[in-house]
Amino acid sequence: MPYGIIGTWRMAFEGAQIALQMLKSGEWAKFALERAVKEVEDYPYYKSVGYGGLPNENCEVELDAAFMDGDTLSIGAVAGIRDYKNPISIALQLSEKSFNSFLVGVGAEEYAHKEGFERKNMLTERAKKIWEKRISDMKEKNLSPYDGHDTVGIIALDERGSMAVGTSTSGLFMKKKGRVGDSPLSGSGFYVDSQVGGASATGLGEEIMKGCLSYEIVRLMQDDRTPQEACDKALYEFHHKLANKKGKQPGAMSVVALNNKGLWGVASNVEFSFVAGTNKEDLKIYLAYPEGSRKTIIKEANKEWLEAYEARIKKPI
Amino acid sequence: MPYGIIGTWRMAFEGAQIALQMLKSGEWAKFALERAVKEVEDYPYYKSVGYGGLPNENCEVELDAAFMDGDTLSIGAVAGIRDYKNPISIALQLSEKSFNSFLVGVGAEEYAHKEGFERKNMLTERAKKIWEKRISDMKEKNLSPYDGHDTVGIIALDERGSMAVGTSTSGLFMKKKGRVGDSPLSGSGFYVDSQVGGASATGLGEEIMKGCLSYEIVRLMQDDRTPQEACDKALYEFHHKLANKKGKQPGAMSVVALNNKGLWGVASNVEFSFVAGTNKEDLKIYLAYPEGSRKTIIKEANKEWLEAYEARIKKPI
Repeated sequence: MPYGIIGTWRMAFEGAQIALQMLKSGEWAKFALERAVKEVEDYPYYKSVGYGGLPNENCEVELDAAFMDGDTLSIGAVAGIRDYKNPISIALQLSEKSFNSFLVGVGAEEYAHKEGFERKNMLTERAKKIWEKRISDMKEKNLSPYDGHDTVGIIALDERGSMAVGTSTSGLFMKKKGRVGDSPLSGSGFYVDSQVGGASATGLGEEIMKGCLSYEIVRLMQDDRTPQEACDKALYEFHHKLANKKGKQPGAMSVVALNNKGLWGVASNVEFSFVAGTNKEDLKIYLAYPEGSRKTIIKEANKEWLEAYEARIKKPI
Repeated sequence: MPYGIIGTWRMAFEGAQIALQMLKSGEWAKFALERAVKEVEDYPYYKSVGYGGLPNENCEVELDAAFMDGDTLSIGAVAGIRDYKNPISIALQLSEKSFNSFLVGVGAEEYAHKEGFERKNMLTERAKKIWEKRISDMKEKNLSPYDGHDTVGIIALDERGSMAVGTSTSGLFMKKKGRVGDSPLSGSGFYVDSQVGGASATGLGEEIMKGCLSYEIVRLMQDDRTPQEACDKALYEFHHKLANKKGKQPGAMSVVALNNKGLWGVASNVEFSFVAGTNKEDLKIYLAYPEGSRKTIIKEANKEWLEAYEARIKKPI
């Protein structure tokens, strides 16, 4: 039976590599997925997820995460939670509850405290410096405060045919306190049904939630589209619809999908890196770009791109 | 051109009556809708929305609300907000923002404070008594703490063809602090596109968000189903799917829909009251029940039912 994993952005690579090994050894999709997301949450140089994630306008790191079990459709999510090491694990545990499975703010923190989840000051020196620099840039250069909103979203399929999806993010850099994007919202940031497949989105959450992109992609796969066809159709049609309604280009939106046969697809209205691997193909880092207005070009990331990425995320502030 | 309004539960009646008059006079759907929801939020005897809404396990009234503009697909939402008189108005104002349009917890309260929204202690004597009684019942009779989760969800269409949807709720009675249901989640609790129609859901949010029911209904209407066909198909198919996955009956789920021609529909897996009226038919209170496993019976609420309702909501605790 096929197994596989797909994740948004270059940052998903190290975790997905561990997870793919776990899937190869027969581990459940949900636990392989959790492990993959934790790896991203723990790495200090990924500035939009977990430890090292960029703070809100008050310099607080507020985190959102969600987990969905494709076998049961159970969902767990947290939003606006501060100073817990692994929000994905809290979301996974919440997905096992029939009630109170989506918790926000102080309530989410109180739950995590009582359940013994590990606390950690999630603000790194580096993130604080980036925040300080942005504050001064905003004053001096009149820059828009908002950019940077890269959610890690990972979908996993195991040999039993069980599927799961998880998301984790520190949200929009410089967001207002309590701001929530699409990442913890079912149907928008993620959706999975083991009888079909799963999808996850990243980009400007305020746009993505207008289109319920992840649900739409899973629905299209249920209608016998391949993951690539489903991603292309859902993302570009929605991009054009939104552009018409707004009279200007929508914000950044990127999607990934994996079906229960181990086939995957992606689409994006900006340059977008992602990782994918299955029982048939090694895990690789890819780049995706929109081609024309309805298709996606996908190519493997080359050495040059990878080196530039590495230099960029570690560049002195 | 047609205009109309549909709202979940008997409690929507008084507000919808005012809103239907506003629509008749040429008011925009969004403002008629806001007025309708405020009426429900302000009425102390409706125990699941706004003032008089039942509190969480800590005896705090935490409110969720959302607004979506069908012309632009813009969304505004708040969740876990305490002690503001009209959460729907905060959600409506947030829908005008490109960023930070969904705020939760303390962040939502800080925003509402700065923007001058009216504060109000939303806990009534009656709600507090119901909470105290439940606490003692839980100890003595080992009752499940959770029931009562009736969101008001209203969809309006104006003569211009502009549509909007709004939801407001105090959420699940006795919920954990910070618990969020489907009501403020796009695609689950609500969805509207003026080119098609709108939908809203009420019931156990933890179930509804597994199916993105409101988005699915709007999508089915886009595929040329009537609102009634769309509600029947989305709700009952999802109910059966969930029953199969869980091996037991899902929680309560009810949906309402209105298309841009002024036709409406509803479906529910429990007894469900709602109100609907258009340029062609006076606003009435109806009851809906599932018939067999795929259809909905709808009849007008009779005098007996209405009197029993009135007595029930005002019964001494």
